[in-house]
Amino acid sequence: IKRTLGEEVVVQADIFTDGHDQLRCLLRFRREHEPDWHEVSMQPLANDRWQGRFTVTELTGYHYTVCAWVDRFLTWRHDLLRRVDNEDIAAALLSGVELIEAAAGRASAEEAAQLSHWAQELASGESDLDLRRKLAASEALDAMMARHADRSLMVEYPGSLPVSVDVERARFGSWYELFPRSCVNEPGEHGTLASCQARLEYVAEMGFDVVYLPPIHPIGRERRKGPNNTLRAGPEDPGSPWAIGTAEGGHKSVHPRLGTLEDFQRFVQRAEELGISVALDIAFQCAPDHPYVSEHPQWFRYRPDGSVQYAENPPKKYQDIYPFNFETDDWQALWEELRSVFTFWIEQGVHIFRVDNPHTKPFAFWQWLISEIRHAHPETIFLSEAFTRGKVMHRLAKVGFTQSYTYFTWRNTREELTQYARELCQSPSREYFRPNLWPNTPDILPQYLQYGGRPAFMVRLVLATTMGANYGIYGPAFELLENRPLEHGSEEYLDAEKYQVRTWDLDRPDSLRHLVARLNRIRRDNPALQYDWSLACHPIDNDMLIAYSKSTEDLDNVVIVIANLDPHYRQSGWVDLPATLFGMPGGRGGQMHDLLTDARFLWNVGRNYVQLEPGQAHVMRLRRAQRTEQDFDYFM
Amino acid sequence: IKRTLGEEVVVQADIFTDGHDQLRCLLRFRREHEPDWHEVSMQPLANDRWQGRFTVTELTGYHYTVCAWVDRFLTWRHDLLRRVDNEDIAAALLSGVELIEAAAGRASAEEAAQLSHWAQELASGESDLDLRRKLAASEALDAMMARHADRSLMVEYPGSLPVSVDVERARFGSWYELFPRSCVNEPGEHGTLASCQARLEYVAEMGFDVVYLPPIHPIGRERRKGPNNTLRAGPEDPGSPWAIGTAEGGHKSVHPRLGTLEDFQRFVQRAEELGISVALDIAFQCAPDHPYVSEHPQWFRYRPDGSVQYAENPPKKYQDIYPFNFETDDWQALWEELRSVFTFWIEQGVHIFRVDNPHTKPFAFWQWLISEIRHAHPETIFLSEAFTRGKVMHRLAKVGFTQSYTYFTWRNTREELTQYARELCQSPSREYFRPNLWPNTPDILPQYLQYGGRPAFMVRLVLATTMGANYGIYGPAFELLENRPLEHGSEEYLDAEKYQVRTWDLDRPDSLRHLVARLNRIRRDNPALQYDWSLACHPIDNDMLIAYSKSTEDLDNVVIVIANLDPHYRQSGWVDLPATLFGMPGGRGGQMHDLLTDARFLWNVGRNYVQLEPGQAHVMRLRRAQRTEQDFDYFM
Repeated sequence: IKRTLGEEVVVQADIFTDGHDQLRCLLRFRREHEPDWHEVSMQPLANDRWQGRFTVTELTGYHYTVCAWVDRFLTWRHDLLRRVDNEDIAAALLSGVELIEAAAGRASAEEAAQLSHWAQELASGESDLDLRRKLAASEALDAMMARHADRSLMVEYPGSLPVSVDVERARFGSWYELFPRSCVNEPGEHGTLASCQARLEYVAEMGFDVVYLPPIHPIGRERRKGPNNTLRAGPEDPGSPWAIGTAEGGHKSVHPRLGTLEDFQRFVQRAEELGISVALDIAFQCAPDHPYVSEHPQWFRYRPDGSVQYAENPPKKYQDIYPFNFETDDWQALWEELRSVFTFWIEQGVHIFRVDNPHTKPFAFWQWLISEIRHAHPETIFLSEAFTRGKVMHRLAKVGFTQSYTYFTWRNTREELTQYARELCQSPSREYFRPNLWPNTPDILPQYLQYGGRPAFMVRLVLATTMGANYGIYGPAFELLENRPLEHGSEEYLDAEKYQVRTWDLDRPDSLRHLVARLNRIRRDNPALQYDWSLACHPIDNDMLIAYSKSTEDLDNVVIVIANLDPHYRQSGWVDLPATLFGMPGGRGGQMHDLLTDARFLWNVGRNYVQLEPGQAHVMRLRRAQRTEQDFDYFM
Repeated sequence: IKRTLGEEVVVQADIFTDGHDQLRCLLRFRREHEPDWHEVSMQPLANDRWQGRFTVTELTGYHYTVCAWVDRFLTWRHDLLRRVDNEDIAAALLSGVELIEAAAGRASAEEAAQLSHWAQELASGESDLDLRRKLAASEALDAMMARHADRSLMVEYPGSLPVSVDVERARFGSWYELFPRSCVNEPGEHGTLASCQARLEYVAEMGFDVVYLPPIHPIGRERRKGPNNTLRAGPEDPGSPWAIGTAEGGHKSVHPRLGTLEDFQRFVQRAEELGISVALDIAFQCAPDHPYVSEHPQWFRYRPDGSVQYAENPPKKYQDIYPFNFETDDWQALWEELRSVFTFWIEQGVHIFRVDNPHTKPFAFWQWLISEIRHAHPETIFLSEAFTRGKVMHRLAKVGFTQSYTYFTWRNTREELTQYARELCQSPSREYFRPNLWPNTPDILPQYLQYGGRPAFMVRLVLATTMGANYGIYGPAFELLENRPLEHGSEEYLDAEKYQVRTWDLDRPDSLRHLVARLNRIRRDNPALQYDWSLACHPIDNDMLIAYSKSTEDLDNVVIVIANLDPHYRQSGWVDLPATLFGMPGGRGGQMHDLLTDARFLWNVGRNYVQLEPGQAHVMRLRRAQRTEQDFDYFM
């Protein structure tokens, strides 16, 4: 399971025994480097389920487990307090004395003296029976008996369970992906890290926490792809940044047209000044002219004719890409080299990595690599770009990836979104699978955006920013509403930035940059939006509308979102909000403060009416009524 | 998990790997005494879930596990069949030759020759490309390659999982509990095993499979309880059969007033002639004058005043009952002796035991005892009488109990019954927790029966017989509608047979014996009612009605039950049956044959109307339409 600094681990366990004996149950936890357990008492819930909790406060691995034993003292006390016959009580008090004296034998001198004193009092026929029973039931006695319990028959959960602890940014972050080479003002130019650095203010104004760059390395020249993925590139075509490596360098070099390593360091520093972390794309594959191919031929597979085996997924062929052969006899050298790619960029100040197609590399490799890197750099974040089968995505999360891309990109209807929200935020996988929601990527222009116009972009943005504590957009394509597909039925962009430099008119009046900024501001102001697990969908009597909420555990911050999923028509309906959201059974409702428009509405517990234009959504903070005074309502 | 002879074990496993390689997955199983695994090929379902199945055919423990490997041949074939370029296909055929020749090296001489022949054909440029591709895709090649697969990278599920196999009676049986001492015709008499033997025909006429007797041992005289659980018994009061043991003997003796061990053997023999198995009650506790108390004082606990510790659950005291101290230093002798109680009665021909309050004895004791007994006598059935917390009941099932009593006794409303049916028949616990449904026991007269009159008894009987493949009633109290509680709010019977001899007028005209007989007949005729897992509840628009079905996997036998849960008023409503029950998508409905009344109705797929009097139920076999001919319907 994963947690971020300051989060709680709540542990439940079924613990029971035969007969009617009473149990004492403990939750144990320790940091990876600690030899001894901390112990926390567990409390019974119902039906033999027990619960305990602890908070992770250090950026290191934690372990936890549970233990329990039949506690003769507790059983004795439990029975004693239910006895009604004075003779029975007197006899029972005497058998308790034995238990307390035995505990004294296990205690320090001071506590032993106290226990012996209590034992004498219980045994003494002089004191009043009620007084002696009161002593037997006292919390002070129980606490000391718990400290010196007879643990000879203690049972432990076999083994311990690990907790992976991440920095807060792993739980909450707004990502912005952009191509540095497109950071230009005039068509025909080629952007640089310097021109991209100038663009950082634009990104910061929108309120992003992470700026993510596609690979910045030299791009292969052999079999380079032309615009729109054509097979032959012209002499001026820049190629795909994911076709990594040429004579000028590979995974540890900066593309000469983007600048130098120093430029990159300056870029990282400027981003940090603006409160933005830089994320790099790590794509473990090579262009045919990558230096690895000649320097380490044993790291690749070969075809019957002796040529290097290119990537393929029959009948598709990717002749511009050579995958590594992870099963090479020289695998140890290969793995070490790939690890050194991460450490190289960590040394340049990067601590967030978006990993390209991790599911086509061995699970065992990632498990080793992430564990190695995080051992030295526990603040490192790994985002898994695995758009693949669910169990493979979950496995990558289990072998160590901090976050994962999700199917959110293709979940459009109320039913789809509700079901997926439940899977991500309520199912047990939430303990280890941390979603990062992307409405678009350079590879994926979903049909909803292709056909829904500006309202479609607006609603997808509201959904991503308020359903996911982590989300990202690929811009400026997103805020500039880029929606032309390569061809009908395709999810590829026409004139995709993957294969060519694009210029963007950032100041277009229809840009969504201000909506993005507003939503990122709302995310920073509302802790409820910075966690995923509280996401709950609420009934609404129109399938074209979706209603959901996020809230902090203390209900101090409750955000309710209602969005129109229909990009073409106005929709209206009645939404049914649970009384629990209002924090009071049978409460009086509250004021809804729409954080997008600053409008305020008085809403009832129960059913309320909404009407939304295409692309419109309410993102409302609930302010509960504090008191009523002469028919005026006051809200906190 | 548990199965009965002839049942299938269907195993599903999530099996996947990184990348696009193809897997071969096998289910392995073996009988306990076999050294080698049988292997069954698993089939992919969806989303990386695989499934295989095997049937248990021998009354012994089974083990199963799964294994899988990345199969280069399958991967090669999968890719080959998707290639479109002739040059690629020719090259790919060549790399397949290597794989086939490697397999030949692992095969017998004969199969190796065949494989080499195929390899040559694939390599030969002379044959047509399509022909060679067809050979690569052939089932014959695949089967032989599977037999000689390269398993060097095979992974296995760690450890194997056990299957406990029981006789068929463990899965399907109708139980009848009665007190032999009440098998009398005149008040004042004391029944015997002989008079009880005469009653067996009455039991057989009702169609029961198991007759279950409360303890038949000598009853303690010290602190014997009088009628209605009064503290002092009169000289003629017979006492409770669960207060076991007096000078005349203990757990291996027959109460002298019931007869001799020979009488018991005759009783068992007569029952068997009538097709009835005898079940005995094993209650591990002693009356104060049980011989164990003087012969093995170390098997009991003692109070501060030196007297034996009686059973108690403060503030309640059971001074007529001494529990064993399972934690005695002499525990090995105690455990052995208790085991010998079972073997003693097994030697008298008993192979079904109802175990009294197993949850007040150690789990470890039962695990050891049941394993020991079943090792020598695998046909033995243990019914756990643990009306306690759910997890304890489940644990007893896991340590070896064949069946368990359930909360059915207190589940009366449609909502309660539906939810409980789902828990028993659909949740994972169905694999090991086999329910036995009892509408009443000598200890429990539920309030529904107290206040609902004859209709309440009728509906509870229909529910027990059709929801549970195993069920039982405590008679003749049940069929004679005994419903007087000890006092208002109590679940104890007034004048309970536990403490006194009762005479029953079996020929009373309001007796339910004929309804019991009819229902037991229906259970024997309809295989659907002999299994639990198919139980499914269906929507009906009146909460006072319940509708459910059971069906065989091939849908050859489908039984639909609709019962009126209101014992006071007629109720009607529309029931919604799924089209799948009718075995044809968009089918035409079928004939409902009411097996209780022989009435026949034509029902549609979808909604149908029912109206039921208090106590009335439809127990209907669905006969599907075979064909339509000149507007006449024919039903199979």
